[in-house]
Amino acid sequence: MSIRGDYDPDNIFAQILRGDIPCYKVYEDNHVLAFMDLFPQAPGHTLVIPKTAGRNLLDTPDEVLANALPRVKMIALGIEKAFSPDGIIVTQFNGEPAGQSVFHLHFHIIPRFTDQPLDRHGRGKPADTEVLHAQAQSIAAAIKHLETK
Amino acid sequence: MSIRGDYDPDNIFAQILRGDIPCYKVYEDNHVLAFMDLFPQAPGHTLVIPKTAGRNLLDTPDEVLANALPRVKMIALGIEKAFSPDGIIVTQFNGEPAGQSVFHLHFHIIPRFTDQPLDRHGRGKPADTEVLHAQAQSIAAAIKHLETK
Repeated sequence: MSIRGDYDPDNIFAQILRGDIPCYKVYEDNHVLAFMDLFPQAPGHTLVIPKTAGRNLLDTPDEVLANALPRVKMIALGIEKAFSPDGIIVTQFNGEPAGQSVFHLHFHIIPRFTDQPLDRHGRGKPADTEVLHAQAQSIAAAIKHLETK
Repeated sequence: MSIRGDYDPDNIFAQILRGDIPCYKVYEDNHVLAFMDLFPQAPGHTLVIPKTAGRNLLDTPDEVLANALPRVKMIALGIEKAFSPDGIIVTQFNGEPAGQSVFHLHFHIIPRFTDQPLDRHGRGKPADTEVLHAQAQSIAAAIKHLETK
């Protein structure tokens, strides 16, 4: 187990980027794709991935990172607007021992609600698909509203 | 408790940026300052802060974020070189309910070692100052080596 390794072009996020696997899409532009985590740690848990191949932060080009973080912010603003959480956690894991399970760079955006403990990542039940669909639409609408302001 | 609020120019990181409070410096340039966390969750736990005032991700200008993340990567590469961890966690908390305790945007870079559980943040003992000093120097040297390659 190590932080480094070759990029697997058939990892699940690469398949989502190619459209081979569906996702509950929140946002997409030339640089990133954002979609709902299927095993959310809290309602509204969203993933943001660059469109450029890279296992994690350490092997992803600087310009990809520079384009990604302002978009993570924008999507977090959409989540704030859609869910009114008490806090928002952004995490990014490098290597399996750090908690990374899909080896394409991704940012977790996780709303925090003071009255709800976080679920452990990937250990809970998958979320209800209709709920995920509705959440994705509500975040997408909030982002669109931000963009047109 | 909320994600939003005014920026307090006397928060501890603003005081560190002004040089009013010392830190175990790892890296500094025109955009960011990086230094050792005094209550590390693992050996090598480093904080990266933009020099621009902002409470968190949501109220920090896009260009500040675009400059920050490639530097978080560079400092993570230095930590990887200096500590050879099994993984690296990057986290960023927005609002007290999300775990934020200092209200100036900061990124935690936390090495993960498979044989060491993470300490809970801010709940453990402060690290030995000589150890922090040596760790800061070793990460700084590793970053310098990366920059000159």
